[in-house]
Amino acid sequence: MAKVVGTIVSTQKDNALIGKKLMIVQPVDINKENIRYEEVAIDTVGAGIGEYVLIARGAGARIADSGENTNKKSVSDCSIVGIIDRFDS
Amino acid sequence: MAKVVGTIVSTQKDNALIGKKLMIVQPVDINKENIRYEEVAIDTVGAGIGEYVLIARGAGARIADSGENTNKKSVSDCSIVGIIDRFDS
Amino acid sequence: MAKVVGTIVSTQKDNALIGKKLMIVQPVDINKENIRYEEVAIDTVGAGIGEYVLIARGAGARIADSGENTNKKSVSDCSIVGIIDRFDS
Amino acid sequence: MAKVVGTIVSTQKDNALIGKKLMIVQPVDINKENIRYEEVAIDTVGAGIGEYVLIARGAGARIADSGENTNKKSVSDCSIVGIIDRFDS
Amino acid sequence: MAKVVGTIVSTQKDNALIGKKLMIVQPVDINKENIRYEEVAIDTVGAGIGEYVLIARGAGARIADSGENTNKKSVSDCSIVGIIDRFDS
Repeated sequence: MAKVVGTIVSTQKDNALIGKKLMIVQPVDINKENIRYEEVAIDTVGAGIGEYVLIARGAGARIADSGENTNKKSVSDCSIVGIIDRFDS
Repeated sequence: MAKVVGTIVSTQKDNALIGKKLMIVQPVDINKENIRYEEVAIDTVGAGIGEYVLIARGAGARIADSGENTNKKSVSDCSIVGIIDRFDS
Repeated sequence: MAKVVGTIVSTQKDNALIGKKLMIVQPVDINKENIRYEEVAIDTVGAGIGEYVLIARGAGARIADSGENTNKKSVSDCSIVGIIDRFDS
Repeated sequence: MAKVVGTIVSTQKDNALIGKKLMIVQPVDINKENIRYEEVAIDTVGAGIGEYVLIARGAGARIADSGENTNKKSVSDCSIVGIIDRFDS
Repeated sequence: MAKVVGTIVSTQKDNALIGKKLMIVQPVDINKENIRYEEVAIDTVGAGIGEYVLIARGAGARIADSGENTNKKSVSDCSIVGIIDRFDS
């Protein structure tokens, strides 16, 4: 769980990152309190600044970033895979 | 080891998450004390709120989420793979 | 490096966990002092409570858990892959 | 997100590291404050000391390090995959 | 980056660990100060106690451990992949 808090601009980068929205996300706990540190996540669902999102790390991040063409190259290790409507506890 | 403490509702998400139960889990130690932070886990065994569960991260999470059809797309990086009946120490 | 401190009993679980010994391990440092938190590891070498063990995480854990049949499904993200006879420093 | 703070010289190494620029990177937060600890990252985009960079870990790091020949052996677990022009928050 | 501080002796272990040098490594920062905790790494480059080394985790560790025969089974999640001659900052 994280909150989108910014974006990154990068021109000189791996070609698999071309055209990707690089968002800065701040991991949060169930009470939306900040935990750990901000990190960069590739947006795959159209998230905006201020929104709470689901993030996936590792191969899950690459698979979400590659989209329907699973052979498409991805170097992502963190992707936004959903926008959170509600936390229920 | 973790305790199920809530659920997440997300409409706008990766298609591999459609129909999945997104649970909020709180990692615990052997004495069921909270450790680290809550995270989201895909339920694959029918766990309910308040239950203690086994979680798998990384590829293990994706394999459990894909179920018997190992080619099925999964973007999970954390899945519930068992309900804990008992901690013995 | 970890010490085996307990076991988990789980009936409702992923079928890849059926018949597996689910041990609770406490990571330790070179002086056998506890570090971080307990976690669940699948035993693949016949370790017992109180023994010091080598653990592998990620794909290494799955490969050890699958044994000789590398196509066998595993959802492990942490496996015991050796029993430590001696720490030399 | 990290800042390049140094380099490593290593002669006796895995052959997949031959010819690679081994940079020391210091992870930073959105305010460019240091977080966690320095680590070694393989440069894949021509980054220089003092620059802020995007890093990828795990398989993403290997894929970036292998470049266009995806079969090329890589042992990287951390690669620089972009140079950050700007942090927007 | 880490310093080799000891070795592990283990007789009862996964067959993929037979014949491997199991070293205890202490992660260090750019000033060679200890960080985090010791862990076990498989040596693949002939490192000795007291030497500063490059370590790779995850699949990079397995690929380095498997050597030229990429089909060879490895359960490593941490391998020594280089001996550090010099830290430049």
